[in-house]
Amino acid sequence: MTTAYDELMAFQRETEALGQVAGRLGWDQETMMPRGAAEQRSEEMSAMEGVLHARRTDPRVGEWLAKAEPADAVAAAQLRHIRRSYERSVKVPARLAQELARVTSVAQGVWAQARAKEDVPGFLPILQDVIRLRQEEAACLAAGGDAYDALLNDYEPGATAAGIGAMFDRMRPRLVALRAKVLGAAKQPAALQGSFGADAQMRMARDLATAFGYDWERGRLDLAVHPFSSGSGDDARITTRVAEADPFNCFYSTIHEVGHACYELGIDSDYRLTPLGAGVSMGVHESQSRIYENQLGRSRAFTGWMFTQMRERFGEFGITSADEFYASVNRVSPGYIRTESDEVQYNLHIMMRFDLERDLIGGSLSVKDLEDAWNARFLADFGVAVDRPSHGMLQDVHWSVGLFGYFPTYSLGNVYAGCLHRALRADVPDLDAALAKGDATPATGWLRERLQRHGGLREPKDTIAEACGFEPDEGPLLDYLEAKFGAIYQL
Amino acid sequence: MTTAYDELMAFQRETEALGQVAGRLGWDQETMMPRGAAEQRSEEMSAMEGVLHARRTDPRVGEWLAKAEPADAVAAAQLRHIRRSYERSVKVPARLAQELARVTSVAQGVWAQARAKEDVPGFLPILQDVIRLRQEEAACLAAGGDAYDALLNDYEPGATAAGIGAMFDRMRPRLVALRAKVLGAAKQPAALQGSFGADAQMRMARDLATAFGYDWERGRLDLAVHPFSSGSGDDARITTRVAEADPFNCFYSTIHEVGHACYELGIDSDYRLTPLGAGVSMGVHESQSRIYENQLGRSRAFTGWMFTQMRERFGEFGITSADEFYASVNRVSPGYIRTESDEVQYNLHIMMRFDLERDLIGGSLSVKDLEDAWNARFLADFGVAVDRPSHGMLQDVHWSVGLFGYFPTYSLGNVYAGCLHRALRADVPDLDAALAKGDATPATGWLRERLQRHGGLREPKDTIAEACGFEPDEGPLLDYLEAKFGAIYQL
Repeated sequence: MTTAYDELMAFQRETEALGQVAGRLGWDQETMMPRGAAEQRSEEMSAMEGVLHARRTDPRVGEWLAKAEPADAVAAAQLRHIRRSYERSVKVPARLAQELARVTSVAQGVWAQARAKEDVPGFLPILQDVIRLRQEEAACLAAGGDAYDALLNDYEPGATAAGIGAMFDRMRPRLVALRAKVLGAAKQPAALQGSFGADAQMRMARDLATAFGYDWERGRLDLAVHPFSSGSGDDARITTRVAEADPFNCFYSTIHEVGHACYELGIDSDYRLTPLGAGVSMGVHESQSRIYENQLGRSRAFTGWMFTQMRERFGEFGITSADEFYASVNRVSPGYIRTESDEVQYNLHIMMRFDLERDLIGGSLSVKDLEDAWNARFLADFGVAVDRPSHGMLQDVHWSVGLFGYFPTYSLGNVYAGCLHRALRADVPDLDAALAKGDATPATGWLRERLQRHGGLREPKDTIAEACGFEPDEGPLLDYLEAKFGAIYQL
Repeated sequence: MTTAYDELMAFQRETEALGQVAGRLGWDQETMMPRGAAEQRSEEMSAMEGVLHARRTDPRVGEWLAKAEPADAVAAAQLRHIRRSYERSVKVPARLAQELARVTSVAQGVWAQARAKEDVPGFLPILQDVIRLRQEEAACLAAGGDAYDALLNDYEPGATAAGIGAMFDRMRPRLVALRAKVLGAAKQPAALQGSFGADAQMRMARDLATAFGYDWERGRLDLAVHPFSSGSGDDARITTRVAEADPFNCFYSTIHEVGHACYELGIDSDYRLTPLGAGVSMGVHESQSRIYENQLGRSRAFTGWMFTQMRERFGEFGITSADEFYASVNRVSPGYIRTESDEVQYNLHIMMRFDLERDLIGGSLSVKDLEDAWNARFLADFGVAVDRPSHGMLQDVHWSVGLFGYFPTYSLGNVYAGCLHRALRADVPDLDAALAKGDATPATGWLRERLQRHGGLREPKDTIAEACGFEPDEGPLLDYLEAKFGAIYQL
C-alpha cells in the first residue's frame, strides 16, 4: 500500500529530474549552444519552466502534504523542503510570477547593453519595474513580515536582515582596519609577468580539480564567459575562463567551482533526485567554494605546490620563490570590481550592496538616487571615486534579474568557510603536508563526512554548526584574515 | 478570437520545444555526459518522456483535432502530423512508454560495454527486455495488423515490410552480381597508407562540412562513438569519429551527418517548432545524408578536390593521382562493418538486418539464437565467417535502443538518393565544375529548394516524387552503381 508520502515523493522525484534537465539546458546554453539557436532556446527554456511551474503548484502536492506522515528525520526534512517550495509557489499569483519572468528576462538584456554603454538612465526604468515586482512578490511571501527577509529566505532559509546586519556591523571595523594596514604596508607583493598559454592553463586547471578530488566520472570542465557549476547527483559540471595574462583567474575560478561541485557530488547518493539531494542554501554552497578557493587553494602550503607546477609548465614569470608566489596569489590592491576582489576587501563590497538593496526593497532609496548612493558609499568605504558606471552600480547582473537578498549569502559563505576551516585544521592537523604535495583530498574527505553528505537534511546554519562542532560566527574568518595578511604584509 | 486550430498549434509548439529539449539531452548523453551520470540520466530521460507522452495523449488534443478546420494545405499537413502522433500515442499506455524509455537508456550503456568486451551473453538479457517491450508496443499500435509494419511506420509512414521486401528482392540479384564482378576484378584499388593525425582530420572534417554549406551559426561538430546528427530548427548538431589509420571514416561520417543537418537547417523557418519543421521520415532523411556522402562526396569531381587537400595537409599516403584516389575512396573490399561498407555492399548489410529483425519482432527468432543466425547469414551473403561479436551482432547500437524497423530506411534512403541524383544532374549540368573546386553548395541549394525547405509538408514518397519529377524506384540507384563501379573496376 502506498502512502501519501510515497506518492508525493514519487511525484517529486520526477520534478527533481526535470529540474536537472532544465539545469543541463542552461549549462548547454553557456557552453555548447550555437549562437544562432538563442531565440529557439528561449522558447525551449520557457516550455520547461512552464512544465516545472505546473508541477510545483499542482494541487495534489498540497493534498499529499496535508496527509503525509514522516516516518523519520529524513522524511521530515524532505517534507519540510517540499512544503516550503509549495507554499512559496502558491503564495505568488501566476500573473505575478509570469510578469517577473518576462520582465527580468528583458531586464538582463537591457542591463548588459547599459553596462556596455555606461548608460545608467537607460537601465533605471526597467530596474524600477523589477524592484516593484519583487516588492509585490515579497509582500505576498512576507504576509505582514519583513519584505527583504522574505526574499533573503529564498536563498538562505532562516537568515534575517537584522542578524546579517548585526554581523556586518561587527565585521566592518576589523576589515576596514586590516585593509588600511595592508594597503599602507611598506612591502607590496609583485604581480605575475608574461603570457600563459590557454591550453596549458586548462591542463593545469584539470590537475587542480583533480588535486581537490573532483570526480571526473561524474563531472566535466568546459569554458564559459562567466564561470559556474551546474547539476546535482551524479552529474555536476564546472566551467572556467582563460585570460592569457592572468592565469589565477582560470585557476581560482576552477577551484571555486570545484568546491560547489564537490558539495553536490558529496551528497549521500540515497538523496539523489530528492529535495535533500542538493546543497542546502546559497550561503552553505558558497562556504564550500570559498574554503576550497581561499583557505585551501590560497594557503601557503598549496600555493607552494602550485609554484613548482607553474615553473615546470610556464617557465619564468617574474616570481622566484614560493613565498613571493604566495604573496602574489594573495595580493591586495585597490579595485572597483567585486568579482576581482581579494579576501580582505570582498566582504566590504557585499556590505554596501546589502545596505543599498535593503533600502531599495524597503522603499527608502529610489532608483533615481541609486547611482549617487552607490558612489558615495564606495568613496566612503574604499577611498576611491567610482570612475564609470560599469565600475559602479552597473557591474553586477544580480539586480537586473531580480536577485535581491542574494548578495549577503556570499559573505555568509565566507564566514562559514572561516568556521569550517578552524574546525578542519583542528581535526586534520597534518593537512598542510598533503596540501604541499598538491593533495587537497583530505580536506574534501573531511568536508564530505562532516557537511557535504548531508545535503539538505538540516537547516543551513545547523548544517554548519554540526560540521564545526560550534555555532558559527564571524570570529574565525576575521582571525584567519588578520593572521594571514598580517604575516604576508609583515604588519 | 482563437480557433481550435490556433489553440492546438500553440499547445503543439510547446510540445515541439520540449521534444527538442529531450533531443538535446540525447545529444549530451552521447557527446558530453560524464560516464557516471548514466543511471541518473535514464531517470531524467524517463521523466521527459513522461511529460511528452502526457502532452501527446492530452485529451484536449483529441478535442482540438475534432474541431480544427485547416485554412490551407499547410494547416492540413500540420493536422495530419498531429493526428498521426496523437493516434499513435493514445494507443500506447504511459507505463509502457516510460518503461521503454528507461530500459533503452540503460540498454545502450550495456550494449556499449558488451561491444567493448565482446560479451554477447552480457547483452542478451536486456536486449530481450527491449524486444519484449517493443513487441508489446507494436501489438498496441498494429491493432491486429502486422507488428513489424507498425514499427516501420514510425520511421517511414506509408512503407510496408511487403513493399520493402519486394524491392529488396529486385535489388539483390543486380547487387550480388555487381559485388562478385567488382571483387573478382583484375585491378583492385590501393588503400591509403600511413597515419593521419586526429586534429588534422577534425580540421579537414570542418572544412568538408563548410564545403557542403553547413551553417556553423546553427550547428556544431563533436566526437561520438557512433556518429549522428541531432536537433531541428536553428540547432542541428553533428558528430563524427576519428581513426588515425582511416581518415575516410571521419570525413564521410561528417559529410553524411552534414546531409542530415542541412535538411533540418534547410526547412522553411516558418515551420520551426511545428510538426512540419523536421525531416519528414527517416528514409527521406537518409536520402539527404546519402546523396551528400556518396553521389556527391564520393564523386570523381569532389574527390579530386579532396585529393589535393589531403596531399597538402597529410603529405604522402601512397596514392599519387586523383584517379587512383577516386578508386581508393570507392574501394570495395570484404568487411564486417555496415557503417564502413561501400556503396555496392551496403544494402546487402541492410537486407540481412531487415530479415533478422522481422524474425525477432515476429517471434520466430529468439535472442539466444541471434548470434548464430547473424553469423550464418553473414557467411552466406558475404562469404566470410564473423570473427568476433563486435564485427557481428554487437556492431550496431540500433537494437539496444529499440530501433526495430529502422534499418530498411537506410536502403530506402539510398534508393531515394539515386533518384534525386538523377534529377539533380539533369537540372544542374555543370555541378561537377563546382564540386571539383570543393564547392558542393549548388547541390545543397538545389536540394533545399526542391526538397529540404518543405519539411513535413508532403508524405515521404511524395516528397521525393515532387523533388525528382518522377515516382521513385530502385532503378536509378542500381544504374548509377553499375556505371560508377563498372568504370572504376574496368568491368
